[in-house]
Amino acid sequence: MAKIIVAPHAGFCFGVERAIELAEEASKYAKEGKKVYTYGPLIHNPQEIGRLKKLGINVLEDENQLDENTVLILRSHGIPPQKERALKAKGVKIVDATCPYVKAVHEAVVQLVKEGYFVVLVGEKNHPEVLGTWGYLEDAGGKGIIVEKLEDLKEAFKHPKVGIIAQTTQNEQFFKEVVGETALWVNEVKVINTICNATSIRQEEVRELAPKVDVMIIIGGKNSGNTTRLYKIAKSLNPNSHHIEVPEELNPEWFKNAETIGVSAGASTPKWIIEAVINRIKEITNANLVSS
Amino acid sequence: MAKIIVAPHAGFCFGVERAIELAEEASKYAKEGKKVYTYGPLIHNPQEIGRLKKLGINVLEDENQLDENTVLILRSHGIPPQKERALKAKGVKIVDATCPYVKAVHEAVVQLVKEGYFVVLVGEKNHPEVLGTWGYLEDAGGKGIIVEKLEDLKEAFKHPKVGIIAQTTQNEQFFKEVVGETALWVNEVKVINTICNATSIRQEEVRELAPKVDVMIIIGGKNSGNTTRLYKIAKSLNPNSHHIEVPEELNPEWFKNAETIGVSAGASTPKWIIEAVINRIKEITNANLVSS
Repeated sequence: MAKIIVAPHAGFCFGVERAIELAEEASKYAKEGKKVYTYGPLIHNPQEIGRLKKLGINVLEDENQLDENTVLILRSHGIPPQKERALKAKGVKIVDATCPYVKAVHEAVVQLVKEGYFVVLVGEKNHPEVLGTWGYLEDAGGKGIIVEKLEDLKEAFKHPKVGIIAQTTQNEQFFKEVVGETALWVNEVKVINTICNATSIRQEEVRELAPKVDVMIIIGGKNSGNTTRLYKIAKSLNPNSHHIEVPEELNPEWFKNAETIGVSAGASTPKWIIEAVINRIKEITNANLVSS
Repeated sequence: MAKIIVAPHAGFCFGVERAIELAEEASKYAKEGKKVYTYGPLIHNPQEIGRLKKLGINVLEDENQLDENTVLILRSHGIPPQKERALKAKGVKIVDATCPYVKAVHEAVVQLVKEGYFVVLVGEKNHPEVLGTWGYLEDAGGKGIIVEKLEDLKEAFKHPKVGIIAQTTQNEQFFKEVVGETALWVNEVKVINTICNATSIRQEEVRELAPKVDVMIIIGGKNSGNTTRLYKIAKSLNPNSHHIEVPEELNPEWFKNAETIGVSAGASTPKWIIEAVINRIKEITNANLVSS
């Protein structure tokens, strides 16, 4: 019987979903009578914030509310290490829901500093994730700049070795422009592509999955840049790859003699479309879903 | 009295000039009765090849001419290390006129291979410099591709760590595009910018000099691309600009009432031709040479 393998990050943001799960778990502390706060709203969705409130989890309004009887949930954006140490010094229990991909940016910035690079952090100057990453740069004794627009970049051209990272949700075209321009002006550039918005992770998963399966299905808008990129990666590694928008486009011919079927989807593809496609593949092939 | 101002980077790039000097030195071996060859023409300029021939230095036609009584001058492009070892094994004495900027590309490619990068070498697939650099990549046990056009780049996107270098005479805009695009597709990119800026510096100098002088003279082959580009830049900024190959073409009419005369030359124009032109201008105008 054929098998369907769905890429783990097909179509949704892993970091926020994980933060919500960790918050749900942390609601046990509320039941124990502790004060449980999130350090800023976990997600920009009032219904979800309301739901968490019912579980006894509130958004922290004032740092004076913090003491040894407090549990503080750090959201997916992360915070500067100096801040984290200060919170711990107050005796606050920390539940760290920093997205692992944001933790990867923190590791990348420390690595670039250790290797002697002047750091260009492509991102929004006041974004909480950027402020967190900047804290790791300073903590490691590094030097760098935050680049929001191309003019900000000039300062970097004075340095012979420039390392470039990005806020996980940065625009790829701007990142590309920054990287290309820098390479023309300095001797050595090291780029660690930390752009996520689930994009890079999904691409990595497709790179792993596509060559291992008999058919690879990519779901998402034909005019969606990130979906098209996923499809191109799949196609380069497996000629039997197909880009569809809706289940009706699935052609039974594609699945003849297929033992394994891979599935992924772009960032803007709703879960229910992914599920509808999986169900249609099951009808065509009588396959099992082995992972999701 | 009129003044002649020569653009500082007029004529040969540093690497070619150095190769010619090393060849002139090596002519001593010819006097000692050895056979002295260059491994391919040192420069695409028949006058210069003719001059070297008079010094006893010929372009190698057939590798069977090589033996222990031979001195072989490697030109500025460099050669693959495997080839160099094979030549040395034959007992040939090597005069290595590989441009130091090209040696820097060889070092960069070996460094990238050692650090585990899949190498993207931006350059022309059959260019001797590229073939030399490719030899260093293979010698270090590395893997990579030569990228001449954007489509060639796809292969690199299968690799998580990509190192990028360029042929020294690569077009900067294309290099920028390759670097930026790669950064979007792979996890980590290390770029060592090995483009030599002699060409762009020469153009920049003409852009500054031409509008300041009364007459602008550009010296070099009428079929030389880089010389023609220099002339076009000059002409667009100063209508009294002239492109000549030899001093005999100078027309005294051009210099009537001229207070300042600018001079530059393309990459393949030998110094002695530039000097002959300057001397002829001095005869015509009774000018002083104020800088070179």
